[in-house]
Amino acid sequence: MGPGGRRHRLTSRTRRAPGLLDRFHRPGQVVVTAFAVAIALGTALLSLPFATTDGRSTGPIEALFTATSAVCVTGLALVDTEAHWSLFGETVIIVLVQIGGLGIMTLATLFTLLVAGRVGLRARLAAQAESAMAYTAGPRRVLRDVVLFSAACETVLATVLTIRFATEYDFPPGRALYYGVFHSISAFNNAGFALWPDSLVRFVSDPWICLPVALGVIAGGLGFPVAFELARAWRRPSRWTVLTRITVGVSLALLAAGTLVFLITEWHNPATLGPLDGSGKLLAAFFTAVMPRSAGLNTIDIAQMYPSSWLVTDALMFIGGGSAGTAGGIKVTTLGLLAFVIWAELRGETRVNIGHRRLPEAAQRQAVAVTVISAGLVALSTYLLMVLTPHSLDEVLFEVISAATTTGLSIGVTAEGPPAGQALLVLLMFVGRIGPLTLGSALALKERTRRYELPEERVIVG
Amino acid sequence: MGPGGRRHRLTSRTRRAPGLLDRFHRPGQVVVTAFAVAIALGTALLSLPFATTDGRSTGPIEALFTATSAVCVTGLALVDTEAHWSLFGETVIIVLVQIGGLGIMTLATLFTLLVAGRVGLRARLAAQAESAMAYTAGPRRVLRDVVLFSAACETVLATVLTIRFATEYDFPPGRALYYGVFHSISAFNNAGFALWPDSLVRFVSDPWICLPVALGVIAGGLGFPVAFELARAWRRPSRWTVLTRITVGVSLALLAAGTLVFLITEWHNPATLGPLDGSGKLLAAFFTAVMPRSAGLNTIDIAQMYPSSWLVTDALMFIGGGSAGTAGGIKVTTLGLLAFVIWAELRGETRVNIGHRRLPEAAQRQAVAVTVISAGLVALSTYLLMVLTPHSLDEVLFEVISAATTTGLSIGVTAEGPPAGQALLVLLMFVGRIGPLTLGSALALKERTRRYELPEERVIVG
Ligand SMILES: [K+]
Ligand SMILES: [K+]
Repeated sequence: MGPGGRRHRLTSRTRRAPGLLDRFHRPGQVVVTAFAVAIALGTALLSLPFATTDGRSTGPIEALFTATSAVCVTGLALVDTEAHWSLFGETVIIVLVQIGGLGIMTLATLFTLLVAGRVGLRARLAAQAESAMAYTAGPRRVLRDVVLFSAACETVLATVLTIRFATEYDFPPGRALYYGVFHSISAFNNAGFALWPDSLVRFVSDPWICLPVALGVIAGGLGFPVAFELARAWRRPSRWTVLTRITVGVSLALLAAGTLVFLITEWHNPATLGPLDGSGKLLAAFFTAVMPRSAGLNTIDIAQMYPSSWLVTDALMFIGGGSAGTAGGIKVTTLGLLAFVIWAELRGETRVNIGHRRLPEAAQRQAVAVTVISAGLVALSTYLLMVLTPHSLDEVLFEVISAATTTGLSIGVTAEGPPAGQALLVLLMFVGRIGPLTLGSALALKERTRRYELPEERVIVG
Repeated sequence: MGPGGRRHRLTSRTRRAPGLLDRFHRPGQVVVTAFAVAIALGTALLSLPFATTDGRSTGPIEALFTATSAVCVTGLALVDTEAHWSLFGETVIIVLVQIGGLGIMTLATLFTLLVAGRVGLRARLAAQAESAMAYTAGPRRVLRDVVLFSAACETVLATVLTIRFATEYDFPPGRALYYGVFHSISAFNNAGFALWPDSLVRFVSDPWICLPVALGVIAGGLGFPVAFELARAWRRPSRWTVLTRITVGVSLALLAAGTLVFLITEWHNPATLGPLDGSGKLLAAFFTAVMPRSAGLNTIDIAQMYPSSWLVTDALMFIGGGSAGTAGGIKVTTLGLLAFVIWAELRGETRVNIGHRRLPEAAQRQAVAVTVISAGLVALSTYLLMVLTPHSLDEVLFEVISAATTTGLSIGVTAEGPPAGQALLVLLMFVGRIGPLTLGSALALKERTRRYELPEERVIVG
């Protein structure tokens, strides 16, 4: 069937089910509005006097920054979370994190399904009645599955943390449960908020805290489609989709490489790994390699790492986690696709094949678009923040990438910066979180088909 | 004709003309060997006692560094060119620059022609007797044209500079001519060597020095194919090839944007643009925007620019100049192609069209490969140099990009670094210069054709 025919059927069916289609007519607008409303509500709640421990209203920039950081599951903070906010304020933050995390995972999964089907929802509805039925039920079922998956992971993680806090650290039961739940939600949603001023530094050598938190971060950051497939078919890697294979492969490679590089670089640093014993060094290096997958918690003092380790963290944060999860960055999938494209090009192949599947040209262009636009956004923001603040490139680049990838690790620039700089970081967190979602939806729905092809012209590159 | 048929004819004809084909059988090896030999010879000559002003032999690292910097037309230096080297030493340097520049321009043009024809030379010889004849004559004629073009540009530039040095600065005629020729060759070949310790800072307000040098840099950095086409058809832009249109468009945009950003950022900097009057600021900002096209000369003190200006310079250096010229970087063509790919993707087009021509998928993949490999090389080298030296990311990134793109601008890290760091920069200059050439030739000759296509599988990106 030619594009003309499909378009005709699309139009004719569009008129029959306007309600459903309208909801997805401009998904970008819906997403932006939903997140903006959540942030506005959060800002209002956090501005209330009883949201703070001292009973005084928080300034508008601090409240907006915190609400944005929570909804966008970033974790950057202008004020110390535990000291500044009351129990009510902390509850607002962690609820915003949970709403943001569920929203991101659900929407990203929906867009993934749309893009994976490649034909936009509208065309799909028109072309295939069967699929259309499946998709009409889609959003609700995806939301249900995402909620169940999140609840299951968070419950397990909260239980382990609560028991550990109560038994090893002698927290009263209520406090142990509260801290367990808070950090479980924060970790699984890759939000990076912690109730200690130095994040999780005091637990650097405790594998019963570090490993569950790291696993929770990884589970949330894999992305729902991959996590779902792994839960169903983890014994049969040969049946995994390309998405799952790339996500698992690149994630494992990055975790191993990151752990190794942090071990080597920071081994003798007296302010980070230096004082730890061998297994402590390994645990801390692994935790530090996991957290740039957009989680933003830390067990060693990020500001005291060597600048070369900041650069490695920059790279890991820029890559981020899996698609359609709570992680930010360009995603490990994108990096994996780029690697396959380059490998094919170096070998002189005219097609990019992964396993026994051919990678569509469109996916290649998407990977390029996501990477180059992200790099451009980071470069432009870094330039602006360098003009606005006296900080060096090391520090500014780290903070910009941390905000744009919603990682939330910080070496202190955020809290010190002028209001204009903080506003820029708010914007970056929002764009870094919403941009890929709206971009993905736009790409999924805007695919056009050319009626004729122009003649090719060869161009030299590089 | 299917790929099988072509391969058959290729094989049968290959046996008829082994001499010609063998020359291009492993062009990467030929290029690497040629440059390595030139650098080794240069190092030996520069190690001679009478190559220095004080008559003592130069250390092996300094000699190797200088020879590599000259052959790779970079301009980074460990020693002050004028104070350290004798007239003989300086002559060796500028001859190495001329040889390196001619070699790069000729080889890059040849590979451009090969890639532009897309089918590798071997397949081309076999498939089209006519084209094969044209290509058999190709290398010599390309070399002749490149030499004529270089000689013409350098003669004009040297004449202008010589007259200016003699009349305005009261140089004796011999010295004026020597300085005119030296800086003409250095500028046109984008080599960045100057006979003053502060490069061209003393001429910051002299448009009769700055503008001719800038034009020489641009002419050399456009790349021979584009310069040739502009010389032939500059009045008829509508007939320009895609290569020329992209090169001219992106170059003009970068020059305008760079001038504007440097003007704004450095306007009040008392160590750079601050003391100059309005037209002086404009001239200096324009010159500073031209030089990151891999030229490496400077009229304001690079080390005194604000770090935000370094970042802008980093970006301009990384992009570099035109393909198949003496410029380094990923090239303005690559940037232009990426922009078109992303623009097409954002609009949901399934094909990338530039003007009325379709951009081949292969060119898109090449642009991606060149950009990502370059970024990876810069990131890895920056990490290594940060581990090796105490410098900040601002400084190390600048020096690494300057070396890898053979630009030669410096903020001082090079001269201070430990031998291991200097060796890394030598390697970077070599790889930055030879890498694209060998990569280009490999891509031109290794194209394969699949007999069958694998089924596609959609993958989510970003
Ligand atoms: K985070
Ligand atoms: K140069």
